[in-house]
Amino acid sequence: MNPDFDPDAIKVIAFDIFGTVVDWHGGIAAEVAQALPGVDDAAFALAWRAGYQPAMRGVMERLAAGEGGFTLIDELHRAILDQVLRDFGVEDRLDGGARRALNLAWHRLPPWPDAVEGLTRLKRKYTICTLSNGNLGLLTEMAKRGGLPWDCILSAEVFKAYKPDPRTYLGVAAVFDVAPSEVMLAAAHHDDLAAARVCGLATGYIERPLEFGAAQPKDVSPRPDNTLHVRDIVALAERLGC
Amino acid sequence: MNPDFDPDAIKVIAFDIFGTVVDWHGGIAAEVAQALPGVDDAAFALAWRAGYQPAMRGVMERLAAGEGGFTLIDELHRAILDQVLRDFGVEDRLDGGARRALNLAWHRLPPWPDAVEGLTRLKRKYTICTLSNGNLGLLTEMAKRGGLPWDCILSAEVFKAYKPDPRTYLGVAAVFDVAPSEVMLAAAHHDDLAAARVCGLATGYIERPLEFGAAQPKDVSPRPDNTLHVRDIVALAERLGC
Repeated sequence: MNPDFDPDAIKVIAFDIFGTVVDWHGGIAAEVAQALPGVDDAAFALAWRAGYQPAMRGVMERLAAGEGGFTLIDELHRAILDQVLRDFGVEDRLDGGARRALNLAWHRLPPWPDAVEGLTRLKRKYTICTLSNGNLGLLTEMAKRGGLPWDCILSAEVFKAYKPDPRTYLGVAAVFDVAPSEVMLAAAHHDDLAAARVCGLATGYIERPLEFGAAQPKDVSPRPDNTLHVRDIVALAERLGC
Repeated sequence: MNPDFDPDAIKVIAFDIFGTVVDWHGGIAAEVAQALPGVDDAAFALAWRAGYQPAMRGVMERLAAGEGGFTLIDELHRAILDQVLRDFGVEDRLDGGARRALNLAWHRLPPWPDAVEGLTRLKRKYTICTLSNGNLGLLTEMAKRGGLPWDCILSAEVFKAYKPDPRTYLGVAAVFDVAPSEVMLAAAHHDDLAAARVCGLATGYIERPLEFGAAQPKDVSPRPDNTLHVRDIVALAERLGC
């Protein structure tokens, strides 16, 4: 962390979404409990999310090889859902319509309790936007339902590249015509922040010890490379004088 | 116009911006008056805007021929500004920094008086977004300054195609995963609406008789092809039951 950090050096704060601004574990587990009573909803949520990284790696490899087009996260989530239903032995309990409905649970994830207040305060001084691999439609519906007051919704879908591709982080700076050092990425994940740092962005780590549920508390120890380390988004607003 | 039109058939309303939601003539003339006292600010504003269509045609022809990349409207506005300054014989009065500052007048255009109230009411029932050839940074700054409550900012910059390319109108439907007929384009320009109609969108014409200034009132007669014809955005909200 940098004690000499000047909040006025930042113009734009881009937020990672899943886990950082919204509680995917709690939101997915609650909808799974409703759609599939009797299933271990917390384990189901973890399995659905765990499928994301390998599926995204596959998409990025096909893109890099020129073999595939851009894939929306909605489609990725659906393919993983089908697999998780098989893995849990409950593929017979949800038909196509019910699967489509459950897949949209990712559009309805609840904001962490500090998110709306923190973002509203930050918005007075900074331009605040999303920077997520989630698609624009998903992020828009999530913001509308949760009252997330984004100035602009940016996504891998805009840049036709997924995080941690440098085009996403540098793309935010280009959209707002500012230097990369005038953009801060706020995220609960060190790998995302590390990729942004390589591009010259400032980084703010947001602790989310319950990202994987209360049964699996996450190590949220500070790492010295981040510009800021804060408990939550209200604490980020306070640290930045908002 | 269609008297049987059902407001519940629409999910998303996409708005043209320049002239429809914000007053480019008034906003540009006011900033020109400040930056270049003594110049005919209304005529300057008209000339600056008049340069847009031929410049955009040139960009689209180069794109179609595979000769040029995507061009931000900010860059287009700047090239036209340089030409208009020469045409008005005042190129010596603004240096590079002053031109950059004046060019950003397009980011600061004031909303028409009905825009914020109308959009706020529409947002309760519909997803509301921009659909403009203006770039994302411009549209975001404009919304932030003017209090325009978009759910999502969409732009030619997202679709890598400019209106009236079908990819822009159909792109809105794709982003929100709805049918083209569930999207309404709201605009003060019949050519924009006609291109959207060909793609299957519903169309709402917004009268803006003063788009070109009080000295040049615009013909705002209804045309039968549009789904709706309304005086302003508050009237659109009323017509749609918001």
